[in-house]
Amino acid sequence: MFSPLNDTALDQLFRTARTYNAFSGEIDDATLHRLYDLLKFGPTAANACPARFVFVKSAEAKAKLAPALDAGNRDKTLAAPVTVIVGYDMAFYDKLPVLFPHTDARSWFAGKPEAALETVALRNGSLQGAYLILAARSLGLDTGPMSGFDNAKVDEAFFAGTAIRSNFLVNLGKGDTSSIFPRSPRLGFDEACLIA
Amino acid sequence: MFSPLNDTALDQLFRTARTYNAFSGEIDDATLHRLYDLLKFGPTAANACPARFVFVKSAEAKAKLAPALDAGNRDKTLAAPVTVIVGYDMAFYDKLPVLFPHTDARSWFAGKPEAALETVALRNGSLQGAYLILAARSLGLDTGPMSGFDNAKVDEAFFAGTAIRSNFLVNLGKGDTSSIFPRSPRLGFDEACLIA
Repeated sequence: MFSPLNDTALDQLFRTARTYNAFSGEIDDATLHRLYDLLKFGPTAANACPARFVFVKSAEAKAKLAPALDAGNRDKTLAAPVTVIVGYDMAFYDKLPVLFPHTDARSWFAGKPEAALETVALRNGSLQGAYLILAARSLGLDTGPMSGFDNAKVDEAFFAGTAIRSNFLVNLGKGDTSSIFPRSPRLGFDEACLIA
Repeated sequence: MFSPLNDTALDQLFRTARTYNAFSGEIDDATLHRLYDLLKFGPTAANACPARFVFVKSAEAKAKLAPALDAGNRDKTLAAPVTVIVGYDMAFYDKLPVLFPHTDARSWFAGKPEAALETVALRNGSLQGAYLILAARSLGLDTGPMSGFDNAKVDEAFFAGTAIRSNFLVNLGKGDTSSIFPRSPRLGFDEACLIA
């Protein structure tokens, strides 16, 4: 009834894919467009698509990002071909008349308390960040996602005057296999799952 | 340099995949194990793996879930072969001595204010929810993720006495193509992205 992808694809997406610490290669703008043209189709609540993406590629943009990075993440991030700032727009609901046109979905969110909006934006913006990671892998790119940075500094440097907030960062490129350690363990099925 | 998956795979994961409202088929427990054995490899901060998954399959479990569902989501969810409750464990850091054994990562989180822990758990638990959606698609399953339910009621019915909180739900099965409308629009590259 169901048609799984082949083992090569399952490996590339999940089983042998790794978080790399060093990257080589160049990523042209056409590849970044292909990446967005895949990830954009991933589902979000009310199709709100709250994520926003800055592809940090130029020396100038890397220099703006550098002071916000934790020391342990700085050198590897500055050396990566591209670093994506995955953010989310707290005013995401202003796009709903276009994104969810068959009803007034904007009114479900506009005027809600900031904490409730943040939960929706963080949940769905993080889903889209994961779509970015797996879309990159599906295009043959390796990824290095990380949370080790100062969100307020990134927001000030890249999102001042907007309602966009940084969520996490993802380095992109061709992963250097000498930059990784053996994979850390995962929870067993019975530790993380229940069939009820 | 990079090897993309073929068009069939990119379609199955992103381009022609849809959020379905009606499902058929049966999903055996072995398939749920295969699903977890893919999604578990997706990256999370400090490999913390905060997501927890309840696969609601039995009539008894569906009856426990029913009162928490919004009216518009109730019938389709009760009729789906499996509904996954994607949750996250607020005490996720207690697993870090196993999951991130090379340093004392537990001390990075234990005792932090609840709001900060919630951000980490929601961010990374949502990433894992997206890995579940794409792992399901990679196994040929269709998905129906949704936020339209009462989180507090689900937590009371399924997670009482634990530190686990519900995040969102995902119906699984063989999608009925007559249950969907034309796909809603997505933001253009320049509305959602910036190359800097």
